[in-house]
Amino acid sequence: MNSRLVIKLIGNILIIEALFMFFPLLVSLIYGRGDHTAFIFSLLITAVAGASASSVKPKDNKIRTRDAFTATALSWIIISCFGALPYYFSGCFSSVIDCVFESVSGFTTTGATILIDVEIMPEGILFWRSMSQWMGGLGILLLIPALMPSIHASSVNILRAELTGPSPHKIVPGIRETAKIIYTIYFVMTAVLFILLLISGLSVFDSLISTFSTAGTGGVSNKNASVGAFGNASAEIILTVFMFLFGISFSLYYLPFAGDLKKLVKDEELRLYLGMAFVCVIIITINTSGIYGGFLKALRYTAFQVSAAVSTTGFIDANFSLWPAMSQILLIFLMFTGSCAGSTGGGIKIVRGLLLFKMVKVELHKVFHPDSVKTVKLNGKKINPEIVSKAALFFFLYFAILLPSTALIAADSKDILTSAEAVFASLNNIGPEFGLIGAAGSYYEFSVLSKIILSFNMVAGRLEIIPVLVLFTPAAWKKT
Amino acid sequence: MNSRLVIKLIGNILIIEALFMFFPLLVSLIYGRGDHTAFIFSLLITAVAGASASSVKPKDNKIRTRDAFTATALSWIIISCFGALPYYFSGCFSSVIDCVFESVSGFTTTGATILIDVEIMPEGILFWRSMSQWMGGLGILLLIPALMPSIHASSVNILRAELTGPSPHKIVPGIRETAKIIYTIYFVMTAVLFILLLISGLSVFDSLISTFSTAGTGGVSNKNASVGAFGNASAEIILTVFMFLFGISFSLYYLPFAGDLKKLVKDEELRLYLGMAFVCVIIITINTSGIYGGFLKALRYTAFQVSAAVSTTGFIDANFSLWPAMSQILLIFLMFTGSCAGSTGGGIKIVRGLLLFKMVKVELHKVFHPDSVKTVKLNGKKINPEIVSKAALFFFLYFAILLPSTALIAADSKDILTSAEAVFASLNNIGPEFGLIGAAGSYYEFSVLSKIILSFNMVAGRLEIIPVLVLFTPAAWKKT
Repeated sequence: MNSRLVIKLIGNILIIEALFMFFPLLVSLIYGRGDHTAFIFSLLITAVAGASASSVKPKDNKIRTRDAFTATALSWIIISCFGALPYYFSGCFSSVIDCVFESVSGFTTTGATILIDVEIMPEGILFWRSMSQWMGGLGILLLIPALMPSIHASSVNILRAELTGPSPHKIVPGIRETAKIIYTIYFVMTAVLFILLLISGLSVFDSLISTFSTAGTGGVSNKNASVGAFGNASAEIILTVFMFLFGISFSLYYLPFAGDLKKLVKDEELRLYLGMAFVCVIIITINTSGIYGGFLKALRYTAFQVSAAVSTTGFIDANFSLWPAMSQILLIFLMFTGSCAGSTGGGIKIVRGLLLFKMVKVELHKVFHPDSVKTVKLNGKKINPEIVSKAALFFFLYFAILLPSTALIAADSKDILTSAEAVFASLNNIGPEFGLIGAAGSYYEFSVLSKIILSFNMVAGRLEIIPVLVLFTPAAWKKT
Repeated sequence: MNSRLVIKLIGNILIIEALFMFFPLLVSLIYGRGDHTAFIFSLLITAVAGASASSVKPKDNKIRTRDAFTATALSWIIISCFGALPYYFSGCFSSVIDCVFESVSGFTTTGATILIDVEIMPEGILFWRSMSQWMGGLGILLLIPALMPSIHASSVNILRAELTGPSPHKIVPGIRETAKIIYTIYFVMTAVLFILLLISGLSVFDSLISTFSTAGTGGVSNKNASVGAFGNASAEIILTVFMFLFGISFSLYYLPFAGDLKKLVKDEELRLYLGMAFVCVIIITINTSGIYGGFLKALRYTAFQVSAAVSTTGFIDANFSLWPAMSQILLIFLMFTGSCAGSTGGGIKIVRGLLLFKMVKVELHKVFHPDSVKTVKLNGKKINPEIVSKAALFFFLYFAILLPSTALIAADSKDILTSAEAVFASLNNIGPEFGLIGAAGSYYEFSVLSKIILSFNMVAGRLEIIPVLVLFTPAAWKKT
């Protein structure tokens, strides 16, 4: 690894993180709950660490694939550790691992929390907790192309490790242009959501928290009863729509502006995402209308939870642990497939499932036409078999992490179902919807070892496994 | 599909099935419990149906890949239906679907049962139930090369659909030679096991039942408490060893006779199979020694259950629902990986996991050496990337069947955990070990729809999915 370059990159990210800490500091000063000192300390430590690392002079600025992968994985771990400082200094958390867990959960846009009563927390802490999801949402590393023009040419490697899913749409040539467009989309959507929530009647603070959690598809809340606590139907509908929107590949939003509406409408992943959500809303609404005493009320809660599931946001608006098994399983299925590649959402990603179903079709075709050279196509284009193969491999890796993690946690502290659910919610970056099928519980109750395993799962899920595995290869730590 | 040829093939198989029915008829006559008429009726119906189908004259004897796949899948369904006749005529089962379920469970070597009290059943029925696993064990279709010399040359297609796992070892050139060798191994191992069980003190009937269930890795028993009921330590040890042996690729047993002991010792799948079982035995023994008040007693039960799990036999010797979560999860893991390809066992097959782990290693290698042309090797030989890719696709298909099946059953009759467990036990052809983690229950309690879904899963698992999916393609039903 080009360690000096990686250190420099991470230093730059830490400086940005320190700058972001000004916002919760401001919030804590406004509310005067005494947590401002925690942010001042954290900000200074992060800034000094960032500046020192950033001042390292790399021998060369060439960022290789290996460096991109290690930098991505390491930076997620390191920003999470520094992001845990405010929690630690605030004294609101009972242990170091709890602070780290909460921070990892934020930056990976998981939204899992070890807090049992969030409403007693100081506003600054709640703000930082929520904003970290927003920061994680688009992936801080996307800033690098804009920050380090010298490595611009090869920074496509970072995008490869960063942009979720196997097929990020290449919108415009040039990584910096792409980054700018994606940022603009993210900022505009965030701003629109915030304004709409204000209009719906939520307070400025509630709107900010909900906006950050939605944009990052994280789902932490400043209320114990999550979004359900607002009792605001308009806000719920707005969040239903926006959770869903943030689960769509961002590059698709650019297509209408590029005059390519047809490509947007015909995008197979988008169609499947819409279709699946639609079908599940219909089935679950019918399935739960008995509970809610009517179709429309059932529709409202169903649409919200379907959107929260498929976008892997995990906001909670209804007590779905009382829903019929069929409805629960459909929600789990949506959490499993997750969102579209290139969105802020988690899960396995719809496009992977799509590619694999097409691969099955090709295999079946070959039974009847053994000499056929038919290959998988997506949006009318032939897909390199290696990409399809990697999508299948991802499935394997997903379970190769899920099952042993469940085993370790079950052996360490909990029953199998609770363990499996916690790992599933972490690896898919869902977070709060934990407690869906098993005994409702809090992440607080897990042991230190279990919390470490869950944190690993969150990072692995966010970075789609391979970059995290790279950290475990000796080759990653060799000097180049 | 060359439908005349497929009908003829299935007719031949039915004739064999009818011949096999003489054995339970004999047993029922010996014990005189009145079930002999059930076998006489069944035998006659099966023989007439078989003879009629067998007399069909195909226009050509060319068996194409598609025909091999459809014939394999159809024959499993049809022999199971005819195999259900004795259950139906005996009046021991309460519905037609229960008879079919029990029969499918036998011929797929799953061993799941809807019977609650097996000990009140007539011996003829118990014998047929157990022998159907033995018949399913090696795969009746392997008989075809010997039966229909005219299609000999292309019958390798049937082997491809039949021999479990992605890489059956080709022992000797010529499909008939291979079939003969594999049969000899199967017969000899069955005979040795039977004799050893007799020596251990089991009755002739108990020995026969246990031998058939072990050889087919099915696991049905003539006792409600399964093998535990014998209270015979020697028999348990013999079964522990033989369950394990029947989970090994049969072609490996020929290697010493071919003077290739080195190839046997170096076989990577065998090594992993042994290694995994060994490690799990050690961990679970330590984990359960508290329960059994000693290492040796724990070792006895652990070795038995590990062997029952990894071979997917599913015999029960200990109340593992009381075991610690860690031990339970390890058992589930072993059931999941299953046995070696080319054995009578089920599960995902060890070699698939091995190939995929190697593929992960290759992918990680490529991060550091982007221009590398490194590929997956098994036993020192380069493996076609398409085979590795298919192994990964199998993983996907496995979950693409497991998850919706669980959803349907949960929606139809049971809670999620029970449903998932039943599907898992069916798809992996484990059967009796159902009740490991969830509420212990019987397959009897499932609804008709659920029993159909579980039967589908058993067949899908036995034939490794693709041949069953072929039946659902319109192309399979087109005339050729």
